[in-house]
Amino acid sequence: MIVTIVNVWVKPEYRDKFIEATIENHKNSIQEKGNLRFDFLQDKNDPCKFTLYEAYESEEAAKAHKDTPHYKKWKETVENFMARPREGLQHKVIAPEDISLWK
Amino acid sequence: MIVTIVNVWVKPEYRDKFIEATIENHKNSIQEKGNLRFDFLQDKNDPCKFTLYEAYESEEAAKAHKDTPHYKKWKETVENFMARPREGLQHKVIAPEDISLWK
Repeated sequence: MIVTIVNVWVKPEYRDKFIEATIENHKNSIQEKGNLRFDFLQDKNDPCKFTLYEAYESEEAAKAHKDTPHYKKWKETVENFMARPREGLQHKVIAPEDISLWK
Repeated sequence: MIVTIVNVWVKPEYRDKFIEATIENHKNSIQEKGNLRFDFLQDKNDPCKFTLYEAYESEEAAKAHKDTPHYKKWKETVENFMARPREGLQHKVIAPEDISLWK
């Protein structure tokens, strides 16, 4: 399993459009084979900072996400919405160890 | 729903002890009423950086976590293991909106 935490800082005037585009990406991403979670969060103290919590069964499945039409569309759509480059941090899973608990 | 992302930087010599204490905290925390997730992750590029992904049904449930014996024990145990103060970032959930998808 692999979890990527993606932090995104959005320009205030594009906040609603970013949310709309990312909900669409979320809905498609959770349908991917190998996706375990794709949570979309908003920082409680900074409404322009968002986090995507993307859990995949394997590194291959995480990489395959970047080849999907919905990811490519999202990336292109939101590029100009960002106040600065997004940050993607990859993680190993320590717990829960049992993959069935992630489904 | 509320998600707290806790980032912890651990002194290398305490890494194994930190993992042990945090697995115990994880096992108890997922039993709490109101807990939805308590994922324990290790940064892929920095084995001394860890992340806890703590999802609760409500702010009250998230606060109640800090009153549990297992949280208090963890906090006391790991205090000296940390290379610098931990960081806890609270988030609103945008998606999935349906709480049943978090259980």
